[in-house]
Amino acid sequence: MVHTIEQIAAALGAEALGAVDLEVTGLAEPATAGPDQLALAMSEKFLADLSKGAARAAVLGAGSDWQALGLKAAIIAPRPRYALAGLTAAMDPGTGIAAGVHATAVIDARARIGAGAAIGPFVVIGRGAEIGANARIGAHASIGAEAAIGDDAVIHAGVRIGTRVRIGDRVFIQPGAVIGGDGFSFVTPEKSTVEMARETLGKGSAPAPAVSQSWTRIHSLGSVVLGDDVEIGANTAIDRGTIANTEIGDGTKLDNLVHIGHNVRIGRDCLICGQVGSAGSTVIGDRVVLGGQCGLSDNIVIGDDVVAAGATKIFSNVPSGRMLMGSPAVKMDTQVEIYKAMRRLPRVMKTVEALQKAVFNRGQND
Amino acid sequence: MVHTIEQIAAALGAEALGAVDLEVTGLAEPATAGPDQLALAMSEKFLADLSKGAARAAVLGAGSDWQALGLKAAIIAPRPRYALAGLTAAMDPGTGIAAGVHATAVIDARARIGAGAAIGPFVVIGRGAEIGANARIGAHASIGAEAAIGDDAVIHAGVRIGTRVRIGDRVFIQPGAVIGGDGFSFVTPEKSTVEMARETLGKGSAPAPAVSQSWTRIHSLGSVVLGDDVEIGANTAIDRGTIANTEIGDGTKLDNLVHIGHNVRIGRDCLICGQVGSAGSTVIGDRVVLGGQCGLSDNIVIGDDVVAAGATKIFSNVPSGRMLMGSPAVKMDTQVEIYKAMRRLPRVMKTVEALQKAVFNRGQND
Amino acid sequence: MVHTIEQIAAALGAEALGAVDLEVTGLAEPATAGPDQLALAMSEKFLADLSKGAARAAVLGAGSDWQALGLKAAIIAPRPRYALAGLTAAMDPGTGIAAGVHATAVIDARARIGAGAAIGPFVVIGRGAEIGANARIGAHASIGAEAAIGDDAVIHAGVRIGTRVRIGDRVFIQPGAVIGGDGFSFVTPEKSTVEMARETLGKGSAPAPAVSQSWTRIHSLGSVVLGDDVEIGANTAIDRGTIANTEIGDGTKLDNLVHIGHNVRIGRDCLICGQVGSAGSTVIGDRVVLGGQCGLSDNIVIGDDVVAAGATKIFSNVPSGRMLMGSPAVKMDTQVEIYKAMRRLPRVMKTVEALQKAVFNRGQND
Repeated sequence: MVHTIEQIAAALGAEALGAVDLEVTGLAEPATAGPDQLALAMSEKFLADLSKGAARAAVLGAGSDWQALGLKAAIIAPRPRYALAGLTAAMDPGTGIAAGVHATAVIDARARIGAGAAIGPFVVIGRGAEIGANARIGAHASIGAEAAIGDDAVIHAGVRIGTRVRIGDRVFIQPGAVIGGDGFSFVTPEKSTVEMARETLGKGSAPAPAVSQSWTRIHSLGSVVLGDDVEIGANTAIDRGTIANTEIGDGTKLDNLVHIGHNVRIGRDCLICGQVGSAGSTVIGDRVVLGGQCGLSDNIVIGDDVVAAGATKIFSNVPSGRMLMGSPAVKMDTQVEIYKAMRRLPRVMKTVEALQKAVFNRGQND
Repeated sequence: MVHTIEQIAAALGAEALGAVDLEVTGLAEPATAGPDQLALAMSEKFLADLSKGAARAAVLGAGSDWQALGLKAAIIAPRPRYALAGLTAAMDPGTGIAAGVHATAVIDARARIGAGAAIGPFVVIGRGAEIGANARIGAHASIGAEAAIGDDAVIHAGVRIGTRVRIGDRVFIQPGAVIGGDGFSFVTPEKSTVEMARETLGKGSAPAPAVSQSWTRIHSLGSVVLGDDVEIGANTAIDRGTIANTEIGDGTKLDNLVHIGHNVRIGRDCLICGQVGSAGSTVIGDRVVLGGQCGLSDNIVIGDDVVAAGATKIFSNVPSGRMLMGSPAVKMDTQVEIYKAMRRLPRVMKTVEALQKAVFNRGQND
Repeated sequence: MVHTIEQIAAALGAEALGAVDLEVTGLAEPATAGPDQLALAMSEKFLADLSKGAARAAVLGAGSDWQALGLKAAIIAPRPRYALAGLTAAMDPGTGIAAGVHATAVIDARARIGAGAAIGPFVVIGRGAEIGANARIGAHASIGAEAAIGDDAVIHAGVRIGTRVRIGDRVFIQPGAVIGGDGFSFVTPEKSTVEMARETLGKGSAPAPAVSQSWTRIHSLGSVVLGDDVEIGANTAIDRGTIANTEIGDGTKLDNLVHIGHNVRIGRDCLICGQVGSAGSTVIGDRVVLGGQCGLSDNIVIGDDVVAAGATKIFSNVPSGRMLMGSPAVKMDTQVEIYKAMRRLPRVMKTVEALQKAVFNRGQND
C-alpha cells in the first residue's frame, strides 16, 4: 500500500509538513526505517535514532523540529499513541482468517451463520449457535450449542466458546482463550478448614484435625456475556456463572492469561492487563485499570475509575477513583511511603536498639 | 424440567414449608426470579432482593421467616452452599458433548474405547490409549499414545493429554488444559549464576561475569497421574515427571491457569485456586487449600490441612495445619500484625527520628 | 533398550565402577527401582532410599561409596544434573508425533514442507508458510500464513503460530502455547486516568471524574521471532510487536503460562520460569533467570546475568549481574534483611511506643 504523507495526515486529522506528496509504503522504527518507510518518532527518545535509519519522513510529537532532524516531510501528532492507533489500523494486513466457510468445518444444521461470515478449517459450531454477519472464526475454534457471536467479531484459532455464551459485536478473541468453562465452586458437607480460616483469619491455634471430607461440585448453570467491542487475550479463561451470568461490559479489554471466576461482573471500558486474576462473584466498575498480575478476592466490589499498579493484590472493597498499589492493596501514595520506609527498616531497627539501650539501659532481647 | 417444592426438598434432604406442591422450572437469583423460578436466597444479603423479583418460592437459610418475606413456599437449607450443590446438579443441562463417536475423530486402531463413551469432532486418540466407559471427550481434544482416561470422565474441548498420562474416574477437565507437557528442567555444563545465587542468597558482590553457557535439556521420562474425582481448570498446565510421575490425588480440584511443575505430588481433596503455581518436585499434603495466585518454590513439603490466603508465596516447608498469608508466607495471624505495622510504619519512622533527636541530640542521618 | 553400565558411563563421559558389564533397561528413583533399572541417587538424600529399592547399579555423586551402599556397579557423576540430561536424552522414547504427513492436515498449496517433516492430524498450515526439515508438528496445531518453522523443531498439539512468526531450529513448543497473538495496546482519544496515575504515582487527590472514553486499538503489525534452541512452555502466550518484532534469543527457555507482551526483547540463554509476565517493550539481557511468577513492568531494561527469585516484581531498570528479590524488587541480600525486620516489626512497634512514653512522657496516639 502506497500513501502520500498528505493522505496519511488527513486520515489522522494531523498536520503534514514539508514534501507532503512524498510516498511511503509502510511503518518502521526510526533506526531501521528504509527510505520508503514512514518512521515513528513520536517519543523524544526515538529522535536520535532517525539518523541511524534512512527515513525521509516521520511522525513526530508536537514541538519536534523536522527540518533539523534532516527529514523531507513530517506528520505532527499532538497525541502520539492515538496517532499510532490510526496508523496501524490503516496498515493492518488483516487477521489471516480466509473468507468463506471451509469445507472441513462441522456446523450443526440448526446453527445460523450470518452473511459474509468466515469459518476456518476444523471449526465446530454447535446446535442452535448463531454467528453474526461478517464474523471471522479461526481454525479449530469451537462454538458451543446455543452460543451467539456478534457481527464483525473475530474469534481466533483454537478459541473455546461454551454453550449459551453470548458475545457482542466487533469483539476480538485471541487464540486459545476459553469463554465459559465451569466455575470453580465446591462445598464440603460439613464446615471446611478454609471456612474456619476465613472466620478466624488464622487467629488462635490451628483448626482441629480436619474430618476427611471430599468436595462436592456446585454446577454452573449460568453462562458468560461479553458486550460489544470487548477484547480477550490469548489463553485467557472466563468461567460461567452459577445461576446468573458472568458479565463483561462494552469496550472492556482483557489481556493474555487472565483468569475471571464465576459470577464476576466487569463494567465497561476497563483495561485488565496480563495474568490478572479475579476470584468469583467480584464486581468491577467502569473504566477500571488493573495492571499485570493484579489479584482480586472473591465477593468484593471495585468502584469506577479505580487504577491498580501491577501486582496489586486487592482483598477488600475499593471506593471509586482510588489508585492502589501493593499487597495488600493500599492507596498508591501511602504505599510509596511504606516502600520507602521498608527499605530503611533494617537501619531503623538498629536505631531503635540503640535508643532502647540508651533509654532503658538494656538490649532489645533482655 | 418441572419439579414441585416438595420433590426438590426431598432430593436435598431439606425441609419444605408452605405450598409444597408449587411447581418451579428453574433456579434464579432473587432480584431477577420469575414466578415459576425457585429463588436462591440462602445468604441474608439476598433476602431484600426477593421483593424485587417475582419468585413465589425460595431456598432460605435456617431462621429466615418465609411468610414475612411474602413467599408461598420455601425450602430451608441449613448449609446453603451444600444445598446449592444438590440444586445445580439436579438442574444441570449437561456438558454439551453429544453422544456417540463423531465421524471425523481420528482414533488409532490400537486404542480401546469404553462402552458408551462419547467422542467429539476432530478428536485424536493415539496408539494404545484407553477411554473409559461413558467418558465424554469434547471437540479437538487429543489423547496421547498409551494414555488412559477413567470411566465417566469429562474431557472438554481442546484439552491436551500427553502420552502415558493416566486419568481416574469421574475426572472433569475444562477446555484448553494441558496434562503432560514436558518438565521445565535444564542444566548448564558448569555451575550457573542461578545456582550461585541460591547458595549465597544474593549475599556479597554480584557473581563473577558468567561464562556464556547454554542450557541442556533434562528430558521428561515420567508422566502424570490424576486420581479419581479430580477437576482441572481451563488452560491449566501440569508437567510430566522426570523419572517418576507427577501425581494429583483423588478428589483434588485445580482451578484455571494453574501451573504444576514436574515431579510435584499433590494429596487428596485439595483445592488449588486460580493461577496458583508450583515449581518442580514440591510435595503437597491432603486437604490443602491454596488461594488464588499462591506460589510454591521447588522441592518443598507442604503438610496436610494447610490453608494459604490468596497470593501467598511459600518458599520453605510448611507443617501440617498451618494457616499462611503473605510473601514470604508467614502464619496468618502474624502476617495480619505485620500488615498493620507496615501501614503505621511511615508514621513510626518519624517517631523514631524524633526520639533519636531527643535522646542523642542528633538527626537520623547525622 | 538395554545398555551396560560401561556403555552409559562412556556416553556420559563419566567413570564406571564395579561390574561394568551389568545391563540395565531404564532409569528409576532409588526407592522404587527394580533389579534391572539404573537408580538415580546423585543427591545425598536419595542414598538412603537405595536399600528400599532393588537396584543393583546406581548413578552417584562424587564421593559416594558404592560398595558400602550394597551396589554391584556404579556410575560416578561429578555434576549430577548434567548427567541426568544425558541419561534422560538417551532414554527418551520421543515426542509421540508420528512420522509422515497425516491425511487430514490442511496444508495450503503455497506452503513449503521440509524433507522428513511430520505433520499430525488436523494441522492447518497457511499460505506461504515454511516448515523446516525433520520438524514435527503435533495434532491440531495451526501455522499462520508466511510463518517459518526451523529444522528439527517440535511444535506440540494445539500450538498456535500466528502469521509471519519466525521460529528457529531445534525449538520445542509445548501444547497450547500461542506465539503471535495481538499486543495489548490501546489508547484513549484524551488522557486517561491510568496515564494520570503514572504521572502522579497516585499522589494528591483522586483524579477528576473521568470523561467516559473508550479504548482505541493499536494494531500489531510486527511479528514474533524465536531464535534457535528456544523452548516455550504449555499455554504460554507471546504477543507480536507493534511495528518491530517481539524477539526471543537463541537458547532461551520459557516455562508454562508465561506472558510476554508486545515488543519485548529477550536475550539468549535465559530461563523464564512458570507464570512470569512481562509487560510490553521491556528489554531483557542474556543469561537472565527469572523465578516463577516474576513480573516486569513495561518499557524497562533488565541487564545481563540478572537473577530474580520467585515472585519478584520488577518495576524499574536493573543493572547487569544484579540478584533480586521481593515486591518491589530490591537486591537479594537487602531484601533478606527487610524480611527479617518485617517479622520483628510488630514487636519493635511496641518498643517504640515504650520509648516514646519514657522519653516524651506520652503515648503514640497523644
